[in-house]
Amino acid sequence: MSEKSKDPGTGVKYRRKTKRIINKDGSFNVKKIVPYSYSDGYISLINMGWIKFLSFTLAVILIINIIFASLYMMAGAETIGHTMGGSWIDAFLSCLYFSFQSFTTVGYGAMHPSGHLSSVISSFETVLGWGLFAIITGLLYGRFSRPSARIRFSHKALFVRDDKGNRSLQLRIANQRKNMLVNLNAVVMLKLIDHTEEGFTRNYHQLPLRLNHIHFFPLNWTLVHDIDESSPLYNFNLDDLKMKDVELLVLITGFDDTFSQDVHTRFSYVHEDLIWDAKFRHPFYTDDQGDIIFPMHWLDEYESIEDQRSHVPN
Amino acid sequence: MSEKSKDPGTGVKYRRKTKRIINKDGSFNVKKIVPYSYSDGYISLINMGWIKFLSFTLAVILIINIIFASLYMMAGAETIGHTMGGSWIDAFLSCLYFSFQSFTTVGYGAMHPSGHLSSVISSFETVLGWGLFAIITGLLYGRFSRPSARIRFSHKALFVRDDKGNRSLQLRIANQRKNMLVNLNAVVMLKLIDHTEEGFTRNYHQLPLRLNHIHFFPLNWTLVHDIDESSPLYNFNLDDLKMKDVELLVLITGFDDTFSQDVHTRFSYVHEDLIWDAKFRHPFYTDDQGDIIFPMHWLDEYESIEDQRSHVPN
Amino acid sequence: MSEKSKDPGTGVKYRRKTKRIINKDGSFNVKKIVPYSYSDGYISLINMGWIKFLSFTLAVILIINIIFASLYMMAGAETIGHTMGGSWIDAFLSCLYFSFQSFTTVGYGAMHPSGHLSSVISSFETVLGWGLFAIITGLLYGRFSRPSARIRFSHKALFVRDDKGNRSLQLRIANQRKNMLVNLNAVVMLKLIDHTEEGFTRNYHQLPLRLNHIHFFPLNWTLVHDIDESSPLYNFNLDDLKMKDVELLVLITGFDDTFSQDVHTRFSYVHEDLIWDAKFRHPFYTDDQGDIIFPMHWLDEYESIEDQRSHVPN
Amino acid sequence: MSEKSKDPGTGVKYRRKTKRIINKDGSFNVKKIVPYSYSDGYISLINMGWIKFLSFTLAVILIINIIFASLYMMAGAETIGHTMGGSWIDAFLSCLYFSFQSFTTVGYGAMHPSGHLSSVISSFETVLGWGLFAIITGLLYGRFSRPSARIRFSHKALFVRDDKGNRSLQLRIANQRKNMLVNLNAVVMLKLIDHTEEGFTRNYHQLPLRLNHIHFFPLNWTLVHDIDESSPLYNFNLDDLKMKDVELLVLITGFDDTFSQDVHTRFSYVHEDLIWDAKFRHPFYTDDQGDIIFPMHWLDEYESIEDQRSHVPN
Repeated sequence: MSEKSKDPGTGVKYRRKTKRIINKDGSFNVKKIVPYSYSDGYISLINMGWIKFLSFTLAVILIINIIFASLYMMAGAETIGHTMGGSWIDAFLSCLYFSFQSFTTVGYGAMHPSGHLSSVISSFETVLGWGLFAIITGLLYGRFSRPSARIRFSHKALFVRDDKGNRSLQLRIANQRKNMLVNLNAVVMLKLIDHTEEGFTRNYHQLPLRLNHIHFFPLNWTLVHDIDESSPLYNFNLDDLKMKDVELLVLITGFDDTFSQDVHTRFSYVHEDLIWDAKFRHPFYTDDQGDIIFPMHWLDEYESIEDQRSHVPN
Repeated sequence: MSEKSKDPGTGVKYRRKTKRIINKDGSFNVKKIVPYSYSDGYISLINMGWIKFLSFTLAVILIINIIFASLYMMAGAETIGHTMGGSWIDAFLSCLYFSFQSFTTVGYGAMHPSGHLSSVISSFETVLGWGLFAIITGLLYGRFSRPSARIRFSHKALFVRDDKGNRSLQLRIANQRKNMLVNLNAVVMLKLIDHTEEGFTRNYHQLPLRLNHIHFFPLNWTLVHDIDESSPLYNFNLDDLKMKDVELLVLITGFDDTFSQDVHTRFSYVHEDLIWDAKFRHPFYTDDQGDIIFPMHWLDEYESIEDQRSHVPN
Repeated sequence: MSEKSKDPGTGVKYRRKTKRIINKDGSFNVKKIVPYSYSDGYISLINMGWIKFLSFTLAVILIINIIFASLYMMAGAETIGHTMGGSWIDAFLSCLYFSFQSFTTVGYGAMHPSGHLSSVISSFETVLGWGLFAIITGLLYGRFSRPSARIRFSHKALFVRDDKGNRSLQLRIANQRKNMLVNLNAVVMLKLIDHTEEGFTRNYHQLPLRLNHIHFFPLNWTLVHDIDESSPLYNFNLDDLKMKDVELLVLITGFDDTFSQDVHTRFSYVHEDLIWDAKFRHPFYTDDQGDIIFPMHWLDEYESIEDQRSHVPN
Repeated sequence: MSEKSKDPGTGVKYRRKTKRIINKDGSFNVKKIVPYSYSDGYISLINMGWIKFLSFTLAVILIINIIFASLYMMAGAETIGHTMGGSWIDAFLSCLYFSFQSFTTVGYGAMHPSGHLSSVISSFETVLGWGLFAIITGLLYGRFSRPSARIRFSHKALFVRDDKGNRSLQLRIANQRKNMLVNLNAVVMLKLIDHTEEGFTRNYHQLPLRLNHIHFFPLNWTLVHDIDESSPLYNFNLDDLKMKDVELLVLITGFDDTFSQDVHTRFSYVHEDLIWDAKFRHPFYTDDQGDIIFPMHWLDEYESIEDQRSHVPN
């Protein structure tokens, strides 16, 4: 059995059993208690989903305009040229329309500030709208230009046994997006849990791969670790994997040729994600024109080695 | 003959014969079937040509304004101050002008919303125009700031035979743009096809180069692979190249000193692009002032070694 | 004792004693006397705090508008449609409101230029506002998108003695922010001052670490230098540390997976920051759900080895 | 004498004598003849000086507005509400003011399009102004955010002879800007010209340095090449340097911690820039508070070794 690898930065000694290290989305199972900072707000706004981001932005715009509409009401709806009707609600809506007309700097002018107070308020509002627009422009660019590689990992990692009885651990990855990834490197680490007097110890082993670098990545890439005498998985069976609370940490790094930036992706497999005695199916085919067709969802397809029945994931 | 190199990430086993791996524009001959994502939309908008991009943008702006013009028509052209004439078409055009005046936030004010409904619609439209402008600003910056190196590869790769009878494979590259490229590295891989019982096998060999790194790149760079006993091309002739469906995969990486980012470029030569017994001509000259003049189209010029007739590409 | 390391770039020979090399905020104790350049202005605007930046921006906007208001006064307040009252102050405030309405391009129109002079001035002002807005948009994006890693270093570095009497120097770091850091490297350099005839000499030693690279960084990382016979700190005591004016220079480099950029952080410990015979406490715990909870301020907690009394920093 | 280094990418064989390879500003002495592309326009706009850039931008804005003013004149100045006076010049200036009011989207409204033709023209103009503004925002950000390191190289490189008679070649660099540079590497290459039958041959030698990497760069860095038996400069004198048309190519690479990007800088010394038997003066001092004061212009100061007279450059 190979000697233990060094801590990859996820800790060794624990008092209790912990959840998996890396979640399916690449995040870590650690809750940090830290003071909030402005920059974290930016990171949140960059990372949240589009629907949440747009809702948040529209809500902020609406709230700011309601606040300014109230200010114009206090200054007097007549000082911004309200003429829409006599009711309180007519006056407030006029103030709200005027607020939007100022905030977006469309400023038609039919409504316009005619007193000192409303002039000052509307000056503030237009400068604020101006500034907020600059911020939103930056946020939108920041969101679009993030190179976040969307690498798809096969749902399962397989323990394969070839014709000669040699065992290997295999998993597959592919690039789900249109961006071009080149110069990829892969690191696969094995985490095993040992019980100690004080609690639990996480032991880490870096698993050697047949190929840990590729130049191009238009198709899929199968990462293969040969389970020979030197492998920490030698003579393991499914029960050992469960008892040792095994977790495979996969780290892919590469260069995104579309955004010209380095990208890093993480994934992990726990013992429920490991399949015994199976092999992957060929994930692409060549059509009559000599084109290679790669249906991305074929990445997950594998078949049992014993009965050759196929298993197609949903 | 050298041992086979490892798969550069473009696959080994194929059931049928396939097209070339890398197209002339650096893209790969693989059709991925994947679900669409927002980020892919961004990548498409960044990668498409300028004429297509500007047409698309103007079309989107026009469609949005026609939709809002229709909404103002429904709300009543008179509620936005239409006074241009009595016909339906006059009214619609007025609504369209008003829509553009709102969308771009110019808001002259001669036309302005005078009812609740048109006020609400125009508030939406100005916010939408505001947001779309932020998006377009980001897209334009994203398009301009992409470091996409435009490296020119010689149209042909040459099999050269020097005075002593030594053979080499040569190709030339140059930087077509004004941006400064430094610290370039080159990798040249040879793909050969072998027939097997199950189909075709792509075998890869990395070809050693006389020089695989340069510090500066103001001129051209000739990549030279010496075809000695250790080369996988030793004793090959033109027929072998065709039969083996040979493809040279060239990968250039470097640092773009203008955009301060790493750049990667790909190119490939298939057997039609290989010229036997030829040599490149000197691609630049020095004028009376001691300036080096480099006409970029000279990069492709070569001459046959036998009869010394020149061949000038179009 | 190990041989001296090479100068890390902070100088060797000094005529007088100097302050610490690296300040607590990562800056260097060097005052450069250089001519000012535009780019330095940009760097200052990117680096200053948010309150200072916003105050500066608002002050610039206010000053520009006061200047243009004065220009409109000179051109005649009546030429921009001032109708607010007869006093000088009413006229000036009207000019100021009009200036803001032009600068932000809201342009309601109730006030508008009616003469050649005021038309020309307002054309200039709107173009200037337009340009300033572009600059502020860029500055805001530049400020938000800076990957400045906020790595927290433990306040103190500890001289630890384990059960077998082996000594080591230890310090801890953690990522204070939500951004994901991966592939971290650490370099720790020791600076010692020697008196010479001409003044002072700074000698540098790079301290070997048990682990100088980690793949992931969701928790803390304890940097450990074993003080064995080969260590330049072998047989040092607290007085030696003070007499030699010791300074530990810590350089952390890594990859920010949120901003996809490399990050570098510096920190330094002088002899007041070194604690003798102490050890760090475990900085995180596991709750009932198996979640790892990491209260960031625990990073600084250590206890004396002799009496096991705890020391909790404020 | 050391064996010749490989071509750094600036060519070996020339028919005539050429100018220096690298100019004082870091550009190369090569004139490329290439077709123009949009991206080159962007690079030019990013690289040109601020005065040129602002003049160009204002000229473009002015020209566009004059064109649109002419279009409004053709459509009829009365259709945009011209009321300023009866002369042709009054009408044209009104059109020009209206054009600016549309282009910047301030749109006061006192002038506004009242016919179909002027409505369509002004719609185009506001969309164009909108788009141009997006482009200028991107250009300004692109200009500001370029990490272009402004590294200052000493005007002269010195041939130093120490007390023991050992010779070395020395040059100094410092960071002129406020941005933080870390992890610097230096490469110094020597170019020598040899006459051949066919013309001139440029031979290159990489000169070994005492120190070719530093971690920090708050002060100056003196690059030192020892001229021992293995140096290609061994036994050279000033006449040899001139006859061989010597050129020192200096390449500095590092990481800009303010912009989080890699930076590359080039400089070169020709034989006029080489000083025989001189040494650099100490470039900084320590004040009473222990602060290190580094007047940047001291970088160039050196003194003759023979007579110890000082030489202070302007």
